[in-house]
Amino acid sequence: MSKMERPFDEELKFLKEKLLEMASRAEEQIALAIRGLKDREEPLACRVLDREEAINQLDIEIDEIAMRLLALRQPMATDLRFITSAMKIGSDLERIGDLAVNIAERTMDLLKSPQLKPLVDIPRMAELTKDMVRDALNAFINGDERLAKEVCERDDSVDKLNDQVFRELLTYMMEDPATISRAVDLILVGRHLERIADHATNIGEDVIYMVKGKTIKHHVEEGRATGLKTCAGGE
Amino acid sequence: MSKMERPFDEELKFLKEKLLEMASRAEEQIALAIRGLKDREEPLACRVLDREEAINQLDIEIDEIAMRLLALRQPMATDLRFITSAMKIGSDLERIGDLAVNIAERTMDLLKSPQLKPLVDIPRMAELTKDMVRDALNAFINGDERLAKEVCERDDSVDKLNDQVFRELLTYMMEDPATISRAVDLILVGRHLERIADHATNIGEDVIYMVKGKTIKHHVEEGRATGLKTCAGGE
Repeated sequence: MSKMERPFDEELKFLKEKLLEMASRAEEQIALAIRGLKDREEPLACRVLDREEAINQLDIEIDEIAMRLLALRQPMATDLRFITSAMKIGSDLERIGDLAVNIAERTMDLLKSPQLKPLVDIPRMAELTKDMVRDALNAFINGDERLAKEVCERDDSVDKLNDQVFRELLTYMMEDPATISRAVDLILVGRHLERIADHATNIGEDVIYMVKGKTIKHHVEEGRATGLKTCAGGE
Repeated sequence: MSKMERPFDEELKFLKEKLLEMASRAEEQIALAIRGLKDREEPLACRVLDREEAINQLDIEIDEIAMRLLALRQPMATDLRFITSAMKIGSDLERIGDLAVNIAERTMDLLKSPQLKPLVDIPRMAELTKDMVRDALNAFINGDERLAKEVCERDDSVDKLNDQVFRELLTYMMEDPATISRAVDLILVGRHLERIADHATNIGEDVIYMVKGKTIKHHVEEGRATGLKTCAGGE
């Protein structure tokens, strides 16, 4: 049976499977990149680079399946929201893959020098973000709004952990300038993980939108910005 | 006349206008954020925070117009590609807005200390990225594949400039640890600009896909990764 002949439900199932495959690959990339960094294993960082292409390919495939469904099946309401969400989620997962590659690149740079310190908080951040990615995808597949909300809420813990990592590394640099280049690399790793969590949050927001049929996007951001808006009207 | 009654062509035109408005706001945000940083004007940084909401709102509106067009008009081929691209471009512009906010936040932090150095390369990077965003949107509106390709190619100059900024700031930190915290802030600003250029490149790639009907996505990334794949097979 050619792909074009698949019944609509099967095409949707196929789209879900591709997304789950992509998400599990993205999670693996995060895990590999951080293991390479923590255990100072260059081959793991290399493997992250080698595996990027497969994730990019899945993003293209997902777009193609979604476009085919939109063009040939002209889906309405729920299915339409599911398919357009799938396209967005594909983009988020692809960016997550890119960020894992960025971490692997930082690792390769870091491996040129002795270890700055044993890593504890960064691997913890990585665990949190990996769980967010997995749960966001499960929330999507099962239309689980509660789980999607929970994922969005967890973004804060990752941000806090990143602030902590950032401050600790600043202290290292100030106390010993010989650590600067390595500390900056680790600060960037923290940023990359924080951005992965942001993408998982985007997915969670898309799920809530899909389930409710209305957007909650940007509400979290508003909340976050509020603290800074003390200067509003200051112009 | 209600929105629902608008003819298809007018709806498409409306969608284009919203995207152009969003892009011009995103460009303004970059310009404001960098001017605030360069001239040490806190009110400009504040204005960036105040204006974020309007961009987020436009992203939601664009999604809604696109979903309505997909649901009610069931467009085929070219129009379908245009509409799904519009949704993706909306997301990219929204992220660009977020990144401008991140720059404004870094600026507020930097303004607590004396200026590290007069900024030259960062404003130049900002100019380049702003032009990339504008040209990417024009390429989209006019289906101009040549311009879209050119935007993608310009990404390299931004990356190079960012590497230069990064190295210079590392030198500052190593020579004088008192500069560390400010230098890290500026390194992050450079990263944010680099990511804005990446989003403009994504838009360029979407345009090429839309025009050609096939994806060139990830080819640039592959090229970039190649240099690092010297370790491939090293596991």
